[in-house]
Amino acid sequence: MGKQAIGVVGLAVMGRNLALNIESRGHAVSVYNRSREKTDELIAEYPDKKLVPAFTLEEFVESLEKPRRILLMVKAGEGTDATINQLKPLLEKGDILIDGGNTHFTDTIRRNQDLAKSGLHFIGTGVSGGEEGALKGPSIMPGGQRDAYDLVAPILTEIAAKAPDGEPCVAYMGPDGAGHFVKMVHNGIEYGDMQLIAESYAVLKQVVGLSNEELGKVYTEWNQGELDSYLIEITSKIFSKKDDETGKDLVDVILDRAAQKGTGKWTSQNALDLGAPLPLITEAVFARVLSSLKDQRVAASKVLEGPQAKPLGVERDAFVESVRRALYFSKVISYAQGFAQLRAASEEYKWDLDYGTIAKIFRAGCIIRARFLQKITDAYSKDKAIANLLLDPYFRDIAKNYQAALREVVVAAINAGVPVPAFASAVAYFDAYRSERLPANLVQAQRDFFGAHTFERVDKPGSFHANWS
Amino acid sequence: MGKQAIGVVGLAVMGRNLALNIESRGHAVSVYNRSREKTDELIAEYPDKKLVPAFTLEEFVESLEKPRRILLMVKAGEGTDATINQLKPLLEKGDILIDGGNTHFTDTIRRNQDLAKSGLHFIGTGVSGGEEGALKGPSIMPGGQRDAYDLVAPILTEIAAKAPDGEPCVAYMGPDGAGHFVKMVHNGIEYGDMQLIAESYAVLKQVVGLSNEELGKVYTEWNQGELDSYLIEITSKIFSKKDDETGKDLVDVILDRAAQKGTGKWTSQNALDLGAPLPLITEAVFARVLSSLKDQRVAASKVLEGPQAKPLGVERDAFVESVRRALYFSKVISYAQGFAQLRAASEEYKWDLDYGTIAKIFRAGCIIRARFLQKITDAYSKDKAIANLLLDPYFRDIAKNYQAALREVVVAAINAGVPVPAFASAVAYFDAYRSERLPANLVQAQRDFFGAHTFERVDKPGSFHANWS
Repeated sequence: MGKQAIGVVGLAVMGRNLALNIESRGHAVSVYNRSREKTDELIAEYPDKKLVPAFTLEEFVESLEKPRRILLMVKAGEGTDATINQLKPLLEKGDILIDGGNTHFTDTIRRNQDLAKSGLHFIGTGVSGGEEGALKGPSIMPGGQRDAYDLVAPILTEIAAKAPDGEPCVAYMGPDGAGHFVKMVHNGIEYGDMQLIAESYAVLKQVVGLSNEELGKVYTEWNQGELDSYLIEITSKIFSKKDDETGKDLVDVILDRAAQKGTGKWTSQNALDLGAPLPLITEAVFARVLSSLKDQRVAASKVLEGPQAKPLGVERDAFVESVRRALYFSKVISYAQGFAQLRAASEEYKWDLDYGTIAKIFRAGCIIRARFLQKITDAYSKDKAIANLLLDPYFRDIAKNYQAALREVVVAAINAGVPVPAFASAVAYFDAYRSERLPANLVQAQRDFFGAHTFERVDKPGSFHANWS
Repeated sequence: MGKQAIGVVGLAVMGRNLALNIESRGHAVSVYNRSREKTDELIAEYPDKKLVPAFTLEEFVESLEKPRRILLMVKAGEGTDATINQLKPLLEKGDILIDGGNTHFTDTIRRNQDLAKSGLHFIGTGVSGGEEGALKGPSIMPGGQRDAYDLVAPILTEIAAKAPDGEPCVAYMGPDGAGHFVKMVHNGIEYGDMQLIAESYAVLKQVVGLSNEELGKVYTEWNQGELDSYLIEITSKIFSKKDDETGKDLVDVILDRAAQKGTGKWTSQNALDLGAPLPLITEAVFARVLSSLKDQRVAASKVLEGPQAKPLGVERDAFVESVRRALYFSKVISYAQGFAQLRAASEEYKWDLDYGTIAKIFRAGCIIRARFLQKITDAYSKDKAIANLLLDPYFRDIAKNYQAALREVVVAAINAGVPVPAFASAVAYFDAYRSERLPANLVQAQRDFFGAHTFERVDKPGSFHANWS
């Protein structure tokens, strides 16, 4: 009996769909699940596919070509450690474990280093695109030993999504935790994108007064232009969806309490550790948290009044276009922050990340896929070392031409009492980033006053302390 | 020879000043430092004080009454662990270690639990007020075993700052890490306060055009009213301070790059873990980080243009009053967030924190001391279980009367291109918190669309998934 080139451990929906994806490219795939039922179900459902079930890890490992390629799709955290510990004694030098779970990059660094001591390779890979992406083509962000990556690259390349120009959405990200890190920032950016779209919706609905039907048309139209992206596309569809039960527009039936699985939080916490300003995505994370305090909000809405509604004072279509510009420019600012975080991480963890390639593999398969990502790749092609995307000529032009609209929308929202934390944070970041002088001199004066923390001077280097009393 | 009731390990400036403070209340104090020089210096400087030097830990421990009370003032982190490990074999059941360092509360929880296994008590205490506070009277926030606290309470009460009504600024915060947690949130609030004052300064200088002399007068005046606080007081003094070298106003000579020691970051990271919205303080932390990117900002200022300056359009004194109101209301919002974080922590870690008492002990000694803290104590006296300070009648009135000013100032700053991340975040939080309906329904629709993450409905309980395609 022949052996398989790859096997999958963990047959929940993501693992199972990735196995089917690999199989669909002409590979036989060994499959194993801790509880036998999931394996039996998969085989029963697809009796004609080249899926080779194993019911013990020994049998599973034995069924693989060497060096073994094992894709772990188990519950991140203790599940991953437990599976690795069970597999480890069965493996040989040069075998490759690939963790495709939703793993914090620091765990991946630790596992990569631990397993390397036994001569085992460990690749941590981001897999984005949800269930459907896993089945048909996800965006894949692998990190780990370069030579191990080369041995799995052919299969990963086959199963990855293809960008509009045909390029596969997979590339080697860097050593140890680089792949899971990039996936984490991808998710943080996704939080930002979703919050920005939600704020545009709130403004269009509450300030402009658009109906769901009109909203659907607006997003459909926006999806034809520079905002063209998966999230805008599904947003446009959401507004025309009816609730089967009540016949109402489904969006109005859905409770306004947003949940989260924690990767946005990780992104913000890491940005704080790195000292990489990530205020927009962090406002988006907190906005979800605040939305979840529904009972408190309902109570507060009864006692905390807002401003009187004022007429918009501008022509409606012109304002809708301002909202579009505000959304696009805020998105640019959010990505500028996210990619600056990647840059800080690359320096801190010595990963030598290739930012242009990262933007490239986001172009298809993943949730944040968008036409605009090509502009980021272009920016890094022109200047690999650019400190911040806002300095690139294309984005500079967006800033120049769209900032008035962003200011107009934030001002209108604030005057109307509509919360726009991410839009407002975008303006503040933009104005702070382009400030030669910020009021931080006062902060340093205060710190030196109460804690003798010293300050720097504008006219010469060094640390100084004043006698304030 | 008599034994001492307390000893201090670690004679850097904070440890030394706390030892002198204790001594000044009539107690002999054993003192020990890892390197002998600091001990010798202290004794040489104060030969007549009741400071009893020890040059080995054995000698130090031997010099103390039982149960021993040992205040650790060593470098937080490994320094604390190393000192504990050296002391542990010398101690007996019932002895009390008090960590007054700048310790992360999770370390305090760990140490408290570890030492409890050996029958040793461990109190982690926040000490705020800087060098001068340590010497003359800090605000003290102890957490740990209640019965151990009772044994050190008399001394801590003597050395603590006294509030205007004479009450000492020390109180038992709760078990294990509660004290260091409260100190962490105190510091986060301090970041928020300082950023808000810095933004008021930027607006008054750049939008209104006030000179340093005028700024000094404005803050002096503000310090007479509801903004009365230590930070406003020192701000007013900062503007009249001249640089000894150049004769210029010192505030203009100080570089606008704010440093930080990490406790603000901890506060934000913990808020993300707890799911307690803390956007304002987090914007303040990121504002410091962004200020530190001075070179990037200088480069960006040359290529990223802002809006054309517009005349203010309102009477100057009236706008200055609006800035004062914006600052006070934003401060209220920041504290509302910080105290909501304390509440979330109290539930998560089972600490049963007393929020009114916490506000009380902030009234003197510490950096955020302010007249306004009495209002927080009053709010919790009226309703111990209030979910958010904004719901209290006094703060509700502030919201009602001052929100127009806050909106006016943020709008003016945005139109002038002056970054006000914390002010803007305050408005967004206020408007979101008082929103019965947020656009998070769209976020949940998107999550269900791309990831089958399900949603809740407005009309009945449960989790639902729609067939979107």
